[in-house]
Amino acid sequence: MTADSAQPGDRVFDWLDRRAEDRRKAGLTRRLTPRRADADHLDLAGNDYLGLARDKRVAGAAAAAALRWGSGSTGSRLVTGSTELHAELEFELAKFCGAQAALVFSSGFAANLGAVTALAGDGAIVSDAYIHASLIDGCRLSRANVAVAGHADPVAIKHALATRRTEQALVVTDSVFSVDGDLAPLPALAQACRAHDAGLLIDDAHGFGVLGEGGRGAVADAGLIGDPDVVTTVTLSKALGAQGGAVLGPRRVIRHLVESARSFIFDTGLAPASAAAALAALHVLADEPERPQRVREVATTLSQRLKDAGLTVSTPDAAVISVRAPSPEAAVEWAGQCRAAGVWVGCFRPPSVPDKVSRLRITVRADLTDGEVDRAVSVITQHAPR
Amino acid sequence: MTADSAQPGDRVFDWLDRRAEDRRKAGLTRRLTPRRADADHLDLAGNDYLGLARDKRVAGAAAAAALRWGSGSTGSRLVTGSTELHAELEFELAKFCGAQAALVFSSGFAANLGAVTALAGDGAIVSDAYIHASLIDGCRLSRANVAVAGHADPVAIKHALATRRTEQALVVTDSVFSVDGDLAPLPALAQACRAHDAGLLIDDAHGFGVLGEGGRGAVADAGLIGDPDVVTTVTLSKALGAQGGAVLGPRRVIRHLVESARSFIFDTGLAPASAAAALAALHVLADEPERPQRVREVATTLSQRLKDAGLTVSTPDAAVISVRAPSPEAAVEWAGQCRAAGVWVGCFRPPSVPDKVSRLRITVRADLTDGEVDRAVSVITQHAPR
Repeated sequence: MTADSAQPGDRVFDWLDRRAEDRRKAGLTRRLTPRRADADHLDLAGNDYLGLARDKRVAGAAAAAALRWGSGSTGSRLVTGSTELHAELEFELAKFCGAQAALVFSSGFAANLGAVTALAGDGAIVSDAYIHASLIDGCRLSRANVAVAGHADPVAIKHALATRRTEQALVVTDSVFSVDGDLAPLPALAQACRAHDAGLLIDDAHGFGVLGEGGRGAVADAGLIGDPDVVTTVTLSKALGAQGGAVLGPRRVIRHLVESARSFIFDTGLAPASAAAALAALHVLADEPERPQRVREVATTLSQRLKDAGLTVSTPDAAVISVRAPSPEAAVEWAGQCRAAGVWVGCFRPPSVPDKVSRLRITVRADLTDGEVDRAVSVITQHAPR
Repeated sequence: MTADSAQPGDRVFDWLDRRAEDRRKAGLTRRLTPRRADADHLDLAGNDYLGLARDKRVAGAAAAAALRWGSGSTGSRLVTGSTELHAELEFELAKFCGAQAALVFSSGFAANLGAVTALAGDGAIVSDAYIHASLIDGCRLSRANVAVAGHADPVAIKHALATRRTEQALVVTDSVFSVDGDLAPLPALAQACRAHDAGLLIDDAHGFGVLGEGGRGAVADAGLIGDPDVVTTVTLSKALGAQGGAVLGPRRVIRHLVESARSFIFDTGLAPASAAAALAALHVLADEPERPQRVREVATTLSQRLKDAGLTVSTPDAAVISVRAPSPEAAVEWAGQCRAAGVWVGCFRPPSVPDKVSRLRITVRADLTDGEVDRAVSVITQHAPR
């Protein structure tokens, strides 16, 4: 406590104000902007790829589950937080994707933390440089020796595996990278892993529901989903429009996570409403395989039209399109103008981008109409920085 | 790949089977046992302390929110995942407890990870030895220099603070410890922090809704909740019967978390149904202050009666009662027999206990009847190991 403080403890968190000022100067201030239930903007920022979060069958299943099972799961999964609904969701997820077994976590973030820490053991991890923050935190939390290879570079991964000093090793990658929407070279990665006795952990958050036959995901599409050395994480909060995450893999991997993943054991189970919503969405996906196809078509069309308008645009492998901005400030202004015109787009700046390049991040949905795509192109190009 | 493997990659995860066998030999196998919606057992294992997870007002609010807002929040909180519902919940939580501001995370685990990592900076952390797994993981993830002091020992905390080498410091503790249910010496900890210019982060997961005036929690009860150097985490999944977690604290702390807590920024926002359930439960709590009082009375009564029956029982400061078992195997058998008799109790064994002592962990609820308490005493004592 210092002499000039008005109250004991007043200055302890003064350093937070200095950090805020640093962010303001760098154009990196972030603010929450809550949306209304009846907002009528065109949403090109969310991850509801199949347009299921507002589907009556899915929201209705969530509502019915809250009334039947209660509003919370009441405890951790190993104590009172596992209901028959969780078990059914796990069974159906594994069956749909073609994995031996599945385990549901309260978020994709928790699923990634749990899978990386529990499966790395005290061996080696080799990761792609652009993996999602939750995988990075899993690597940091693990007791493993972590090597970061270049982005989408199987040769670098192979080299890191060949020069490791431990027997156990785990390669960690996204399938579809969340910022640019590009696809990892999964077959080459699997080959590198097999040549060096390493496990392969793939975060399919942005591939599941969008890629592969009927939306079975990028890992299924690469023919790897049922393999004994491959573990896949998916999210229930993107294509399935709910909340939560899951790990899919060999039965012994799932058993190991139940018994040792800290973000599973020490977390309250997913709310029944979210589990039921994910299950209902999975059924819609199985019944309507045209949805994933429509997402991919819309992404290709929108990307091409923005490119034709002279913007620097990624070629989407799934539902995510990245459009370069000249600076963080320009990105914020651009996104703000689109928003003012009723079109919501994501605005990604450091530290949320691996390459320090600020951009608009545009996501598409299966239920976008051609007219909405026209409107998106018009608004985004009209407000592009000169 | 080895010569005798049936399929490439078959042996990569062989080490998981060896770990499973080690756990089996040590009596530490864990299995998921999904419950039915219409199960009629007496639940003394969950954390639904106020009996609100099945309250029609709370479950009804969850159902209505799923229909109105959709089954998921569709994105991270800074992109599309913040609704007016989240903002209202944050406002009401802060107001009810007496903090300047609040921030909702998708779980208490995520709230703890985010708060510890973002508030430790590259300074020092001093923690109680018995803190929750999510706080431990937050400490491990942080870039801070971590010192672990003995359990409930403000003198040890003070010593660690006095001998630290960094300007910034954060003391981390549970309010009510999750295994034994004992209360931390919060006033003495706050005093130690103030004497040494350190922040104090308190996880009030098991105090909020149970302790303090009207269930405002252990931190409010200690008169610390509005202080400029104190940060509190709470859960929405225990007393409030929903899902999620929240951080309460000074406005600048909350702003800092919005802009830098990775488990906030890179996670999908809490599902609207869970946010609405927590908000409705908060209103019930405000309207029915007798609920927290009833929980505490039931805990005291049950603990005393188990003690009178000759068991080694903790004296509960909140809703958690710990009953010692002679071994992990005896704890599993005891809990299994109670369960077979229709009374569900928790069974905590290493590594979920800080002191390596296996025990039954019993939790009480505001809606337990005197008859149910009688039944609990009878079943638990009847099956106690000789």
